[in-house]
Amino acid sequence: MTSKKAPTMRDVALKAGVALGTVSKVINNIPVSEKNRKKVEEAIAELNYEVNTYARGLKTQKSNLVALIIPNTLNPFFATFANYIESALYRNGMKMLLCCAGGIPEKEEEYLNLAMNNKVDGVIALTYSDIGKYISDGFPLVVFDRFFENRVIPRVASDNFAGACLAVEKLLEFGCKRPVYIRFHSIFPGESDKRLAGYLHACAAHGIEPDYLNMIECPENLALMEDFLRQHQRPDKELTFDGVFAHTDYHAFLFMEQLRQNGYRVPEDVQIIGFDGIRKFRYPAGDLFVSSICQPIEQLAEKCVEILMARCCGAQVPPLTLLPVQYRYGGSTREETGQGSVLPR
Amino acid sequence: MTSKKAPTMRDVALKAGVALGTVSKVINNIPVSEKNRKKVEEAIAELNYEVNTYARGLKTQKSNLVALIIPNTLNPFFATFANYIESALYRNGMKMLLCCAGGIPEKEEEYLNLAMNNKVDGVIALTYSDIGKYISDGFPLVVFDRFFENRVIPRVASDNFAGACLAVEKLLEFGCKRPVYIRFHSIFPGESDKRLAGYLHACAAHGIEPDYLNMIECPENLALMEDFLRQHQRPDKELTFDGVFAHTDYHAFLFMEQLRQNGYRVPEDVQIIGFDGIRKFRYPAGDLFVSSICQPIEQLAEKCVEILMARCCGAQVPPLTLLPVQYRYGGSTREETGQGSVLPR
Repeated sequence: MTSKKAPTMRDVALKAGVALGTVSKVINNIPVSEKNRKKVEEAIAELNYEVNTYARGLKTQKSNLVALIIPNTLNPFFATFANYIESALYRNGMKMLLCCAGGIPEKEEEYLNLAMNNKVDGVIALTYSDIGKYISDGFPLVVFDRFFENRVIPRVASDNFAGACLAVEKLLEFGCKRPVYIRFHSIFPGESDKRLAGYLHACAAHGIEPDYLNMIECPENLALMEDFLRQHQRPDKELTFDGVFAHTDYHAFLFMEQLRQNGYRVPEDVQIIGFDGIRKFRYPAGDLFVSSICQPIEQLAEKCVEILMARCCGAQVPPLTLLPVQYRYGGSTREETGQGSVLPR
Repeated sequence: MTSKKAPTMRDVALKAGVALGTVSKVINNIPVSEKNRKKVEEAIAELNYEVNTYARGLKTQKSNLVALIIPNTLNPFFATFANYIESALYRNGMKMLLCCAGGIPEKEEEYLNLAMNNKVDGVIALTYSDIGKYISDGFPLVVFDRFFENRVIPRVASDNFAGACLAVEKLLEFGCKRPVYIRFHSIFPGESDKRLAGYLHACAAHGIEPDYLNMIECPENLALMEDFLRQHQRPDKELTFDGVFAHTDYHAFLFMEQLRQNGYRVPEDVQIIGFDGIRKFRYPAGDLFVSSICQPIEQLAEKCVEILMARCCGAQVPPLTLLPVQYRYGGSTREETGQGSVLPR
């Protein structure tokens, strides 16, 4: 598909056998080793690569554009994140190009190339694609959640470890004896993997045998959850667990539906705590779908923008910034102790 | 706030007392009357307006950018619309600048100016702001739902009239005798106003006395709905209505909550049909919040892009394009006739 396109900076990097950042430096007259400069210049000549002069013009002038890469805006977490990224960028005098990548790495690559070619000043990405090979240390990129091995790309995330611990502790506080974990994760490492670590840590701290379902692929999730449910039914149909920490509110919602379809009551028989804090209809006044460990989506978005702005100015930024989460009642827990707060709506 | 900014094309138009399109034509050497050309050139000189040469360069080259103006992506309807606009633009080789205007006309104006200055090829807008004064007939704009008086701006919308009729007919089909309408509308005219016309038409056709709540402002909506409920309670608490057509799924959801808090059962005592077809968690497999007249959001987005592309190529486009809606079961109707379809999930 890309064979007929004009060669990109990436093609030059591949041809020259150097990192993309090196090509960018050569083009923008930033010192690199003489050996690398030569390699890049030869590759440029061989590929007949034309440096985008408009892009070079913008290098000093700034495009005042930032690309946001997210999977889609159908998922309310991503949609809310996009909304607050746009607001924060706007307050910084920037406009946002939105890329709903839908897990297509080529599409994400195209947007990363915009930064390569100085058509955008930077990129904020919430991605589960294999884009690691396209980015180098100096790339004007801030990622949400995702970890890139061997690359210093600043990351912003919620405190997933503490959030998972909090979920288990809340379930115990509300009377659960055997909390299980419905886990979902990407094949790429990220901060949300720490939810498992947090769950295991809390189990160990409270002397509970950990027990969790591990899911990667989406289409079979419902069947996997169904299996998990069956495997935890005694012959008299009583369940061997009484609490569920679910990886997201969506998974909590799906599992809650499955429990109810099988005749179990939530929260009477099984209490559930999700993760994210997604609200019905997404309005500030909207109820939660389930009791949840809520991510501070607006603050996370603002932090991503703040760090990108600092990075674009050449400032030192922390490699990892974690923001605190909090538990909120959303109907799927018993809160017997009276300590749980039913928030005013 | 704008006083310190460099003069815009709009300032030139105001100064010259001509339409923005006229200024654009003069700048881009498209023939206008000699009188208007002189006015514009004088205004340009007087304001010291600098034609953005980069922008002029793009006039032939195209920016391949389109701005989408929506209130926010917190509302799932807008978020879903944005998702599909982005996809459709991408298939057309275009990228999307997202403006979450939040009802701030100045912010929308800024994005409209991008089109004026040829920094974007066109604008798609779902807006409830007073932006009519910024746009002229030739503006590369497609609007969703909204109507601009005295301007030929192509509009795309659902068939709101037919949708409202369908809602009333479905309520009657499922046994309702007295369907009321919970209406919400913007102060600016748009296609969704036809939901009232459709409701009144269906009532007349079926010999029903129309009865509806009219809401404009958001903050007091809950109180207005509460009042409406009280006014329709007999001394024995029986309601004088048994069916509700709500302006959106959100309003249906709010009113349903209010009914339940007052001890009424949905759908046993009152059946409710909303409008939009919003799904829980926005996934294709997600359930509806309520039985609803579903808008074909993906097709609406694709149609907006198709029309904008045609308009940018100078093709004739229809002033109004309406797409059909359909009823879907979402738990808040009785469907006693067995005709209603519970969709496979």
